[in-house]
Amino acid sequence: MRAVIYEGNGRIRLGERPVPVIQDERDAIIQVTLTTICSSDIHIRHGAVPRAVPGVILGHEFVGRVVETGKAVRKVRPGDRVAVNVETFCGECFYCRRGFVNNCSDEHGGWALGCRIDGGQAEYARIPFADNGLTRIPDHVPDEKALFTGDLLSTGYWAARIGEILPGDTVAVIGAGPTGLCTMMCARLYGPGRIIAIDTDEYRLNVAREQGLADVTLIPGQDDIGAYIRNATSGRGADVVFEVAGGADTFQLAWQTARPNAVVVVVAMYEQDQILPLPSMYGKNLTFKTGGVDGCYCQEIMDLISAGKLDAGFMITHRCGLDEIMDAYNIFESKKEHVIKYAVKP
Amino acid sequence: MRAVIYEGNGRIRLGERPVPVIQDERDAIIQVTLTTICSSDIHIRHGAVPRAVPGVILGHEFVGRVVETGKAVRKVRPGDRVAVNVETFCGECFYCRRGFVNNCSDEHGGWALGCRIDGGQAEYARIPFADNGLTRIPDHVPDEKALFTGDLLSTGYWAARIGEILPGDTVAVIGAGPTGLCTMMCARLYGPGRIIAIDTDEYRLNVAREQGLADVTLIPGQDDIGAYIRNATSGRGADVVFEVAGGADTFQLAWQTARPNAVVVVVAMYEQDQILPLPSMYGKNLTFKTGGVDGCYCQEIMDLISAGKLDAGFMITHRCGLDEIMDAYNIFESKKEHVIKYAVKP
Amino acid sequence: MRAVIYEGNGRIRLGERPVPVIQDERDAIIQVTLTTICSSDIHIRHGAVPRAVPGVILGHEFVGRVVETGKAVRKVRPGDRVAVNVETFCGECFYCRRGFVNNCSDEHGGWALGCRIDGGQAEYARIPFADNGLTRIPDHVPDEKALFTGDLLSTGYWAARIGEILPGDTVAVIGAGPTGLCTMMCARLYGPGRIIAIDTDEYRLNVAREQGLADVTLIPGQDDIGAYIRNATSGRGADVVFEVAGGADTFQLAWQTARPNAVVVVVAMYEQDQILPLPSMYGKNLTFKTGGVDGCYCQEIMDLISAGKLDAGFMITHRCGLDEIMDAYNIFESKKEHVIKYAVKP
Amino acid sequence: MRAVIYEGNGRIRLGERPVPVIQDERDAIIQVTLTTICSSDIHIRHGAVPRAVPGVILGHEFVGRVVETGKAVRKVRPGDRVAVNVETFCGECFYCRRGFVNNCSDEHGGWALGCRIDGGQAEYARIPFADNGLTRIPDHVPDEKALFTGDLLSTGYWAARIGEILPGDTVAVIGAGPTGLCTMMCARLYGPGRIIAIDTDEYRLNVAREQGLADVTLIPGQDDIGAYIRNATSGRGADVVFEVAGGADTFQLAWQTARPNAVVVVVAMYEQDQILPLPSMYGKNLTFKTGGVDGCYCQEIMDLISAGKLDAGFMITHRCGLDEIMDAYNIFESKKEHVIKYAVKP
Repeated sequence: MRAVIYEGNGRIRLGERPVPVIQDERDAIIQVTLTTICSSDIHIRHGAVPRAVPGVILGHEFVGRVVETGKAVRKVRPGDRVAVNVETFCGECFYCRRGFVNNCSDEHGGWALGCRIDGGQAEYARIPFADNGLTRIPDHVPDEKALFTGDLLSTGYWAARIGEILPGDTVAVIGAGPTGLCTMMCARLYGPGRIIAIDTDEYRLNVAREQGLADVTLIPGQDDIGAYIRNATSGRGADVVFEVAGGADTFQLAWQTARPNAVVVVVAMYEQDQILPLPSMYGKNLTFKTGGVDGCYCQEIMDLISAGKLDAGFMITHRCGLDEIMDAYNIFESKKEHVIKYAVKP
Repeated sequence: MRAVIYEGNGRIRLGERPVPVIQDERDAIIQVTLTTICSSDIHIRHGAVPRAVPGVILGHEFVGRVVETGKAVRKVRPGDRVAVNVETFCGECFYCRRGFVNNCSDEHGGWALGCRIDGGQAEYARIPFADNGLTRIPDHVPDEKALFTGDLLSTGYWAARIGEILPGDTVAVIGAGPTGLCTMMCARLYGPGRIIAIDTDEYRLNVAREQGLADVTLIPGQDDIGAYIRNATSGRGADVVFEVAGGADTFQLAWQTARPNAVVVVVAMYEQDQILPLPSMYGKNLTFKTGGVDGCYCQEIMDLISAGKLDAGFMITHRCGLDEIMDAYNIFESKKEHVIKYAVKP
Repeated sequence: MRAVIYEGNGRIRLGERPVPVIQDERDAIIQVTLTTICSSDIHIRHGAVPRAVPGVILGHEFVGRVVETGKAVRKVRPGDRVAVNVETFCGECFYCRRGFVNNCSDEHGGWALGCRIDGGQAEYARIPFADNGLTRIPDHVPDEKALFTGDLLSTGYWAARIGEILPGDTVAVIGAGPTGLCTMMCARLYGPGRIIAIDTDEYRLNVAREQGLADVTLIPGQDDIGAYIRNATSGRGADVVFEVAGGADTFQLAWQTARPNAVVVVVAMYEQDQILPLPSMYGKNLTFKTGGVDGCYCQEIMDLISAGKLDAGFMITHRCGLDEIMDAYNIFESKKEHVIKYAVKP
Repeated sequence: MRAVIYEGNGRIRLGERPVPVIQDERDAIIQVTLTTICSSDIHIRHGAVPRAVPGVILGHEFVGRVVETGKAVRKVRPGDRVAVNVETFCGECFYCRRGFVNNCSDEHGGWALGCRIDGGQAEYARIPFADNGLTRIPDHVPDEKALFTGDLLSTGYWAARIGEILPGDTVAVIGAGPTGLCTMMCARLYGPGRIIAIDTDEYRLNVAREQGLADVTLIPGQDDIGAYIRNATSGRGADVVFEVAGGADTFQLAWQTARPNAVVVVVAMYEQDQILPLPSMYGKNLTFKTGGVDGCYCQEIMDLISAGKLDAGFMITHRCGLDEIMDAYNIFESKKEHVIKYAVKP
């Protein structure tokens, strides 16, 4: 079958690989019906993800149809349309029992797909712990609406959940890329009074506003972000801040725009250590939540998609077949053509 | 001034009373600009509220303009437009410090206005603990949108908050009267997957649907409520149930439609003891939350009104002057003319 | 092997049954090394548990040694000493994923052992879902200290956890039988200022005091319970109340001794419907939590036993062999000889 | 009266000052009966607290007797013995209503006493917002047991509360000075399985162990802290970490000894910015809580002292009169004579 292969040293290529087979009784094999490229794939291509294994098939955000299940699999059956969770997890260990599936202590727990084990930029994929990692897609939900369930929407959902948003809160989201947009969409579920999107990309801010995700958009350098937020909050600052941009400047912006006692969720993956200026923020009593998605809410997300309460389909600005994916990688990486997300059909 | 006076023994009349004056340094006097009739007023008229003091001016849901403040009042000034909280509370006692202002241990704490002390179906009213009991109305918010801040919206907000709704949940609201509608509106803030409104009044159910408050409406006797909810929830039942109807049948319906481990919020004021069939519900692990509104979120509610995220203005189906309020009482009590709420202008 | 068999119609007998065998790959077989009689066994004997299946082996609180495991069992191995959880649960369903294992939707989920499937008043027992239902006992913890892990301590732990006790709280526990004592012991973990034990049995109250579980003990009829608690709490009432007695009078006592906004945990299994006097308690804003133990904290309990922070061994007042268990049933049921709990050695 | 005066530029002296008088109707004047020196006083003496106002009387941890109250004061009366809260706060602002009193938006809100307004190393002190800042001491509680209520115990209580400790947790406390000891004492209230105290001062570790505050003590450089904690927690790390030492090395130790998904409470006041190595901790999903005490639980603390559940009196290793306080400053600062805390009698 055709698949995107990571060759190590930052090189990837479209190549030929055998169709995967069941290796453990908890596995399922799915035929990939729609897949996409994620910014983490770009990180891998750059060689910035040391644990990525050369030779692995990339791709960790995709939907498909079950073709075979191991005999311990109970929740899905061949023929089922399913969304795939970015994380594979055992469901039984200390961390899984607490919902911290990103830290599943199984050898293949956490983010393994498309990084440490073969992923979904391919015609078929093997999914370990299929009962935990696959979510059935209702008939009336098309693939494009379900595509982001397991990764981007899971991340937005996780971030919004740990953000402790209360009804009426002023929420700031720094970064209006795909993850930022999904974070806004999920933050909406908690009834904030106002979502403020911050980015340097005016096009993406427009999308956030047009899709009803952001009430206000601000551009660093152009708008006085601190002044705007203070003014909108009786001088206090944002009640909850999501840092989804990943820069040294945005890390500082995050805690500075937060009001005292705010929660600052550090969603972005950072490539450098950051400075935590504890003396400057002394007495501000901030909470910082760091880390990566705990992807154990896919059923809830799918229910919300099914009920029309979450819809990330608008993020698909580009579509192509698997044979054209190398071009898609280039366009996506360079953010050309106002691309937000690709939908790639194997 | 003109005022609705409770004469005891279930009799009320429109009469003449002196304009109130400051009695304590924490008081404010407000000129009432819009007031309304609440079902609790009907309870008082029926003689069903024993603590209601004969001679008291009725009315506990109103907005106005501050005309005078005691010298310990810090947050409002003469001229401010304000919404009045149904509850007066000290803000300092054991209960107030925990947000349980309904149980404020001050002599005038809890629901006193229009029951134990003079209320707001009058031209002027005295508000004790004005710093806690008044919320400024922004200029762009008209009185009709602010009118329900202190009572109905506070009740809906309180109920929704203690209901522990999670995004995607199936929420059942039994009773689509004014309180039920406000409960749905506030439940919406928590991102439920589906709100199911249950009532025998088809007109009100239509309003709930048209206003986007209910996704589904069911009529007892006509629809098989249990079957519908089980079917919609993979056989489980509602994740959260709000009982806003107050009948023996609806009390039983509430726990029966709840899924195991659900929260059942008993919002309605009951006139009779109820049967709690513990053996039948054994192992269902239900949580029942009972009581009355803790009205300490008026600023949050006003912020949401101001931001356009809460709007209960549609409930005003009837308008009149204070001189016509006795007719209004009759129409409201008999639920004639599809009345939901009156706006009464002194 | 020897086993206590429920014959239906309220009759039980010690009889002979074959040693159980693995039926599902998630099963384990354990050799019972210590078992006990629970008040639920008495309920079954009385015919008061309709779902109890005639012919079933009784017993749901016991420890043992693993002798065989199905091939899907991952956490325990033959030879391991283990405590058995009263509940069998799949760990994967909607309820299990939320920690509501008492409502596990598997056919054998919830309380099945010694009721719907063969239990542990026998020489051997089969444990379904062994990975979820068995907890390894550290070498330095003797059987008698581990015996109550899966049922009584799990119940006390569950009750204390959902009681929302805050440091310094005044906690009332109505009922000083085995479950009441374990509830006090687990409530202690939350740093209450004062635990008040209420019972008619002076001997058990003395035990509660001597073991450091209760700070104060009160006897209905003899002490003015309401007055004492109000006096001790500036007139408010208990912050948290656990009803572990199961009578109509104690149900009323529970909500009456609670302060406004308290949590009342209804731990007892009731044989009759109760009256919930909503008008009398209106405005008191009580939360009632009902149901049965969610036994998914056995590892935490065992860790606390191992660290010396929980020790329920003192409850074993009587010891005998399995052959003497019918006498033990009689003594335990009639509460003769100040029996609290039996340790029965097969 | 005699008082310790901060002269600016890091100089302090014992001098003469007029007895304070009521300035606002919410003030109280208290006669100081016992006071102490805190490490923050040392920071001020070092000139490391820029907002400390030259000329101010130092001291923010003391008990006394009320001699006069402003006419708006309702909770205390002349003659009452009281503990003083380190923070003065209005109780009414956005932050106070949420319990974030450290960020009280009043001009004198937060830590003002002995820093921005005259404090309690003196014979008398004026306490603003006396209703919020004074806690009555029961007759049977001597001054020495009540002395640390408002500052050290409040800090330990605050830290333990936001640490989200669950029963059975492994808790690491880095730093066994007065704040660390109080943090351990308050962490105990949450039923941890094990408290591990880490310090370089063997004497203080012994105190922690002897007082039953620490189950285990470890010395950096001497013990392999990481290995010990991993070994004690099945390889995971501490469930909750309190950083009470304030060094660059201890900041790194804090997050490194924490297990994935742990809460790290940064209690110490840092004099330098710290490095937050986000790439190294990626996926560990840590929560950092920073800031200073929200001192609004003094009543709860006093209740626990009164009930014998909290007792920090053992920390008083040295006693002297106010005239000897300059020597006491030197001994306390240099940690000579195994001093933990001084009790200074004016």
